[in-house]
Amino acid sequence: MEHTLDPADWTAFRALAHRMVDDTLDHLASLRDQPAWRPMPEEVRTALSGPLAEPQGATAAYEDFLTYVRPYPNGNLGPRFWGWVQGNGTPLAMMADMLASALNPHMAGFNQAPALVELQVLEWLAELMQMPKGTSGILTSGGTVANLIGLAVARHAKAGFDVRELGLQGHAQPLLTVYCSTEAHGWARRAVELLGLGNAALRRIRVDGDFRMNVDELRDAVARDRRDGHRPICVIASAGTVNTGAIDDLPAIADLCREEDVWFHVDGAFGALAMLSPNLRSRVAGVERADSLAFDLHKWGYLPFEVGCALVRDAEAHRAAFELKGSYISALDRGVIAGGLPLAERGLELTRGFKALKVWLSLKAHGAEAIATLIDQNVAQAEYLARRIKAEENLELAAPLALNIVCFRHRGSDALNREILMRLQEEGVAVPSGTTIDGRFALRVAITNHRSRLEDFDVLVDAVKRIGAQ
Amino acid sequence: MEHTLDPADWTAFRALAHRMVDDTLDHLASLRDQPAWRPMPEEVRTALSGPLAEPQGATAAYEDFLTYVRPYPNGNLGPRFWGWVQGNGTPLAMMADMLASALNPHMAGFNQAPALVELQVLEWLAELMQMPKGTSGILTSGGTVANLIGLAVARHAKAGFDVRELGLQGHAQPLLTVYCSTEAHGWARRAVELLGLGNAALRRIRVDGDFRMNVDELRDAVARDRRDGHRPICVIASAGTVNTGAIDDLPAIADLCREEDVWFHVDGAFGALAMLSPNLRSRVAGVERADSLAFDLHKWGYLPFEVGCALVRDAEAHRAAFELKGSYISALDRGVIAGGLPLAERGLELTRGFKALKVWLSLKAHGAEAIATLIDQNVAQAEYLARRIKAEENLELAAPLALNIVCFRHRGSDALNREILMRLQEEGVAVPSGTTIDGRFALRVAITNHRSRLEDFDVLVDAVKRIGAQ
Repeated sequence: MEHTLDPADWTAFRALAHRMVDDTLDHLASLRDQPAWRPMPEEVRTALSGPLAEPQGATAAYEDFLTYVRPYPNGNLGPRFWGWVQGNGTPLAMMADMLASALNPHMAGFNQAPALVELQVLEWLAELMQMPKGTSGILTSGGTVANLIGLAVARHAKAGFDVRELGLQGHAQPLLTVYCSTEAHGWARRAVELLGLGNAALRRIRVDGDFRMNVDELRDAVARDRRDGHRPICVIASAGTVNTGAIDDLPAIADLCREEDVWFHVDGAFGALAMLSPNLRSRVAGVERADSLAFDLHKWGYLPFEVGCALVRDAEAHRAAFELKGSYISALDRGVIAGGLPLAERGLELTRGFKALKVWLSLKAHGAEAIATLIDQNVAQAEYLARRIKAEENLELAAPLALNIVCFRHRGSDALNREILMRLQEEGVAVPSGTTIDGRFALRVAITNHRSRLEDFDVLVDAVKRIGAQ
Repeated sequence: MEHTLDPADWTAFRALAHRMVDDTLDHLASLRDQPAWRPMPEEVRTALSGPLAEPQGATAAYEDFLTYVRPYPNGNLGPRFWGWVQGNGTPLAMMADMLASALNPHMAGFNQAPALVELQVLEWLAELMQMPKGTSGILTSGGTVANLIGLAVARHAKAGFDVRELGLQGHAQPLLTVYCSTEAHGWARRAVELLGLGNAALRRIRVDGDFRMNVDELRDAVARDRRDGHRPICVIASAGTVNTGAIDDLPAIADLCREEDVWFHVDGAFGALAMLSPNLRSRVAGVERADSLAFDLHKWGYLPFEVGCALVRDAEAHRAAFELKGSYISALDRGVIAGGLPLAERGLELTRGFKALKVWLSLKAHGAEAIATLIDQNVAQAEYLARRIKAEENLELAAPLALNIVCFRHRGSDALNREILMRLQEEGVAVPSGTTIDGRFALRVAITNHRSRLEDFDVLVDAVKRIGAQ
């Protein structure tokens, strides 16, 4: 008699699975009554440390999850979470993740429907971003890898030699240089480090008063590098910086890149999603001109982690950067491997999960317009919050409002503002995060939350005033 | 009145969610009655192409999934799938993925229970791999990224200069060289390309008759590179090659690496899991000596995609290679960000999903011994299949059986064997894959399947004989 990890008793397992669904939906439907965050008691830390004990069965393990894990997450499910830039997830996408895990297809490609689902989703996303038909792409774990893929394609396309074969080691080649603003996200540094370009080859261009890259300085930097014998390969523009939501002058940077024959990469982690809204599209105009574009569906697309996307205008350049050479997998013209592994030739992984299903089901069920409506709503909420802050004597905006991120301070020291932030979280009122703007600490409210209501921002402002006055 | 992506009618959504669970469990409980794989009709291809239509609601979208997607995956759920190296997934882990998606924590770190769950899982895995306490690690999308992380740490630790800051560009530095066998998986090439080392810096050492790296040739290659002024930084050993399951002489390679001050990386994608079995552990002895070790839980751990793991013996070296510098995220000593983002300083991503939950729940519920029992069972099945093949006049083994991969041929041409493979799949009998061994095509049965029974291998052998005779 063989062993298996399937349930010995399917009926009992079915009952447990239904209980998990009920518990979870009860939890999600009652988020508004739960604290925005709560600290972990010491007993939780104790329970979640130590060696593996004897097997306890599925029900007891699940009950440990209910006791020790579910009550103590970082908080992004709730209506008053605006920390960093995190989406909530949705109930439908959660069930899609269950279906994806159950079907468990290997998403390198293969002659199967799930691969077609991802290809279809990528076409939809390219269309929503107004990129041309034939644009290539890949779903990723998130923005960092999507951006890394864009930069890897840029490196391969613009190096001027076979960078995959030769690497960057010890050649009498010019230095390959990359450009971003001082407000660009930390992924840019990680990407140039990983790719062997090195942090020293990443030129950080200063920003203007609106935290947008100074395009004249960018032009000068490119020219200076050329004069010094270097080879500028890529400019990274931001559609929504992480600190303030600033949007670089994408059309001007796109023009410059075309003139200079430099790759135009856009990091649109959350901001690119504004392309879905007719009301906001003009603010991110130029996204559609990207040679490569990275964005997340798990931020302003409201889907659960993980799902980001890289789109690459030149499909051949995309494939050339990741094509499998000398692979052990030889395609046949019939059967499971017919058609090869095209999705493994667009990014890092050979083995990939079915992230595409939650995007596919959500877009089919809700439509892109439902997401656009919520993006509009979040921007309107940011404007409302900014108005409330301006109207308060003891509060001030710390940066111009560009899209959906409101940075503000209580009048007083950095220490006071830090204390306000920590108390907001510890009391379970709300979860903004903190950042440093012009050398001073500020509270940062990044609104990518489909559960927030206007009243939630009143709760925030009132609590900040109350704590500030104490 | 605000919009949201939560259901307008929670009761109706709950009914749909329960239906999804019932449908899915019915599907999983009846896998043995379904074909091992089936080709997609043209109408499926048509339905899964074309632009985004009007929103159809969750139920209709789900029904499209049932009609067009679920019947046509690549087949790895079923009991007679032995293609490439793919796990089945388990019902419990599928529900864990639902719970993870529902809770949706941001797994960069943060002051939250889900981060403790991942840290605990990493400790358990290090212990199962018999690596020392204090070993660092990170869960990844799979083997490619886990291996890439190992190699990135090796590059940083052994370059002899600040590779993150300076990159590999144009220095008067020695060439950094990396070593693997000719049977190593294609990730190694992708990793050296991505890291800017270049394919030319990857030395491919020949294998012996058992497809194991020739350690004398490795020693010579390292010495030759040193004589030529290069700097050997890393040897990649395989614990279970993808073609034949061969296990390199890990202790000998570990000794050589120690003598030569070279990083010892082990790719144990599936083979490292044999460490869980007291019966098999001696075959992969030396895994525990790795400076960095990569393996997948979604292969021989039977969990659904995606979950791999990188373990790094020197926690400080691990962190030094990925530490966030100049990050926009400043830690506070209380609240959600207290403790910082340690998991973001161990790999590629800042935003990460809760892959850890399915590992945690599965290990707690089933125990590591249940996995070990199934690994033993798979190895016994491989031995059974090899015996059956040896006993058949028209069949022959194409490589020695090292662990769980059986490569064999029907006597006759490569074309005949290719045809046999495609018919096995098209008829829905079974899904082996194909490979090339010593220049000839072979059928390859990689057994990482908790649903296979001995009788399934009889079905395979009988079908190969029948098709071969036709």
